[in-house]
Amino acid sequence: MWSPEELEARINQTVEWLRERVQEAHAQGLVIGVSGGVDSAVVAGLSKRAFPDNSVGVVLPAGSNSVDREDALLTTTTLSLPTMEVDLTHAHQDILASVKAALSVQGYTFEEKLSQGNLKARLRMAALYTVANALNYLVVGTDNAPESYTGYFTKYGDGGVDILPLASLTKAEVRAWAAQLGLPDKIVNRVPTAGLWEGQTDEQEMGVTYELIDRYLLGKEVPEAIQTKIEDMHHRSEHKRQVPPALALPKLTEL
Amino acid sequence: MWSPEELEARINQTVEWLRERVQEAHAQGLVIGVSGGVDSAVVAGLSKRAFPDNSVGVVLPAGSNSVDREDALLTTTTLSLPTMEVDLTHAHQDILASVKAALSVQGYTFEEKLSQGNLKARLRMAALYTVANALNYLVVGTDNAPESYTGYFTKYGDGGVDILPLASLTKAEVRAWAAQLGLPDKIVNRVPTAGLWEGQTDEQEMGVTYELIDRYLLGKEVPEAIQTKIEDMHHRSEHKRQVPPALALPKLTEL
Repeated sequence: MWSPEELEARINQTVEWLRERVQEAHAQGLVIGVSGGVDSAVVAGLSKRAFPDNSVGVVLPAGSNSVDREDALLTTTTLSLPTMEVDLTHAHQDILASVKAALSVQGYTFEEKLSQGNLKARLRMAALYTVANALNYLVVGTDNAPESYTGYFTKYGDGGVDILPLASLTKAEVRAWAAQLGLPDKIVNRVPTAGLWEGQTDEQEMGVTYELIDRYLLGKEVPEAIQTKIEDMHHRSEHKRQVPPALALPKLTEL
Repeated sequence: MWSPEELEARINQTVEWLRERVQEAHAQGLVIGVSGGVDSAVVAGLSKRAFPDNSVGVVLPAGSNSVDREDALLTTTTLSLPTMEVDLTHAHQDILASVKAALSVQGYTFEEKLSQGNLKARLRMAALYTVANALNYLVVGTDNAPESYTGYFTKYGDGGVDILPLASLTKAEVRAWAAQLGLPDKIVNRVPTAGLWEGQTDEQEMGVTYELIDRYLLGKEVPEAIQTKIEDMHHRSEHKRQVPPALALPKLTEL
């Protein structure tokens, strides 16, 4: 694996990049949604290094998963990161019930599992920006290279952020950074989940392991079926990595 | 002003563009957040023309403004557009109270007016996508050229959409299209408001009229102070019209 010096150099470069982005935006610090997973733990660690007195972690429960909440609090405690908690359970249930009722009036059924998961991610974004607005902080994203490449994120949910420090990191490197930042083994080795429903794991949902996506992104050999799958996910998610297409009509210059 | 034929040609071109975007995305139709204002009324009219049987308007009250709701329903009734209503009032109050409490624990105060307005716009986006997910529809945005250019929209709120049909239209042209689409005068001539708080008007908040921004965008003369103001708004909002900056570290090829 990589040497501590090598990791440290890359971590410091990222910390410097975070400071530059905040300065450029005339902002004061950074806000991070802390999920209990390794990606947001690394972003929390980087943010704390970049802005020791001006970074805040927000824990955003939306449902019953108390393990996520415990791991999120373990993360912020380990890093001595100031932490806020905003419980989205009621808002999530309320909007979900309203949409379901409105759809049913029109005679539509509702595929609940994925929709409710995406709604969670978007409510988390909305709450993070409310904190960020209040403090004049930027919202830091946690998506890594495999997630970004395959589009394994919610458009305007966890994808709805101001800056993306981990976007070129493999999952293996994220874990190495987590250990280097002094995070507990429990967090470093945690099974990845987007926290969209109980018992969900990323690899089960994607149908491919992070290890194989990492290999693919590094230009190493992977089975042909896996390569096809990854490229297919990439193409189908192109719209998530772009600004929305706008129709460009010629201007009518008369007033 | 413009001839009906000229307007009709541009409207039809936009309708065709909407159909192409839906087909390209393998989607089934269009969902529009209908606010009661002229921009979303035009988008609703275009969507109904593009997908007579597969477009739906969603009215999203978040607070007490019953005029907006009435004008939104007037719009969808005039267009015979199927309409759903999702009331976000409770979810909005709930998240706002939670964030306020969480901030106060950390000793922070809360500038409520703008933050709560942006939260409303983001909850509307989240609800629209929940409908869109359920129906496999695209979310159509309503931002026009002056709004897009000056950044007068909420990042990941009304800016969080799949496609932007009005992005190159002046406000005057949006009004002309509204009349051409058969919308009532009350909607065509409505005072523009983002609906972020009671009594809010866009022009008051921006400190410049749409007429002057239209003139600027068409390359016509405007007072120097206005020009400076518009360009300043444009530069400060650059981040809203771009994907979030991602740090590009060289890949560590070892596994």
